[in-house]
Amino acid sequence: MPYVNIEVTREGGPNGDGPSVEQKAQLIAGVTDLLKNVLGKSPATTFVVINEVALEDWGIGGLPVEAYRAQAR
Amino acid sequence: MPYVNIEVTREGGPNGDGPSVEQKAQLIAGVTDLLKNVLGKSPATTFVVINEVALEDWGIGGLPVEAYRAQAR
Amino acid sequence: MPYVNIEVTREGGPNGDGPSVEQKAQLIAGVTDLLKNVLGKSPATTFVVINEVALEDWGIGGLPVEAYRAQAR
Amino acid sequence: MPYVNIEVTREGGPNGDGPSVEQKAQLIAGVTDLLKNVLGKSPATTFVVINEVALEDWGIGGLPVEAYRAQAR
Amino acid sequence: MPYVNIEVTREGGPNGDGPSVEQKAQLIAGVTDLLKNVLGKSPATTFVVINEVALEDWGIGGLPVEAYRAQAR
Amino acid sequence: MPYVNIEVTREGGPNGDGPSVEQKAQLIAGVTDLLKNVLGKSPATTFVVINEVALEDWGIGGLPVEAYRAQAR
Repeated sequence: MPYVNIEVTREGGPNGDGPSVEQKAQLIAGVTDLLKNVLGKSPATTFVVINEVALEDWGIGGLPVEAYRAQAR
Repeated sequence: MPYVNIEVTREGGPNGDGPSVEQKAQLIAGVTDLLKNVLGKSPATTFVVINEVALEDWGIGGLPVEAYRAQAR
Repeated sequence: MPYVNIEVTREGGPNGDGPSVEQKAQLIAGVTDLLKNVLGKSPATTFVVINEVALEDWGIGGLPVEAYRAQAR
Repeated sequence: MPYVNIEVTREGGPNGDGPSVEQKAQLIAGVTDLLKNVLGKSPATTFVVINEVALEDWGIGGLPVEAYRAQAR
Repeated sequence: MPYVNIEVTREGGPNGDGPSVEQKAQLIAGVTDLLKNVLGKSPATTFVVINEVALEDWGIGGLPVEAYRAQAR
Repeated sequence: MPYVNIEVTREGGPNGDGPSVEQKAQLIAGVTDLLKNVLGKSPATTFVVINEVALEDWGIGGLPVEAYRAQAR
């Protein structure tokens, strides 16, 4: 019965605009295996949902991510 | 005061690319009525938010949905 | 594949401290039927998760719910 | 450690199609300051994620937002 | 229409076991004011939901919070 | 920047009433490693939040989990 929601910024990946389909498949497989191995959860009833978030929509340190990183450089 | 979040895959509907505006309106009406009838919640303060998720972003059985379905065929 | 999250305040129900087990079962059945009837979603892969929220943790109109209601009386 | 998720309808803002980048930055700064001032939370480990929701995907009063507003006029 | 979800660890506050009722009221008021001032959102249809998370349920740096902090000392 | 929310039913674990502290630590470590290895995400800014859900609050197949399992036996 697990439901796992993974929120990541829309960056990186092969084209710099977010995780690739293959990387998302790796996340889905990895999280499902982890829940099976640690808690014995059945993969058939394990949902994994990935949510890509635009950089302007993610804040840390009181700033949008890109401004936060610029400040840290 | 209810807040209901409905996550569905971006598929189906009249054009095969997700629920239509009419179908979403039916979901909103149906959930609001359900909460009013079962728990007496006021529709005026019942929020329903629908979130369409791309197929590559939804995993089940350790695989992205389309791969999972292909494997099951 | 739907995942539905229902957030309601921890009030009402037969004992005034939140929905009863039976009412929750009605919400689960009602939402699952709605998704089957409107979007043809399979109940076997429809998750419904109910989250009860303490009154002090829910705000509306800039106030905790109970203060908001007292102000409205 | 706070994680704050802000869901708003995709409307308003300078172009009528949702909050501007500057308005989002104000929301991020404002929420982070609030958590620092009220709870002493460190901005460096405070995440704020903004989620814009299409009007057809947000229901209130049992109707999609725009139908609800039309009905209220 | 905003819906804001604030997740914080169950710590701090006057008794060290999480935010007080007053602090939560301050968060509700502050977030609602922020959305009114920045985006013109009506407080009457602004929901703020606070979710306290046990320390063992919050991870950062690959560790539960308390282990992470012990490691950092 | 990843934020991962893991929802599991409050069952299993050494005492049958949900994952143990050690199992939760394994989930936190495993998810953080996965995001580092697949997407190069920094553990220091990876949040993992675990949410245990009472069995009566989780529905599948239109039934609360325990009724669903009883029906399947």
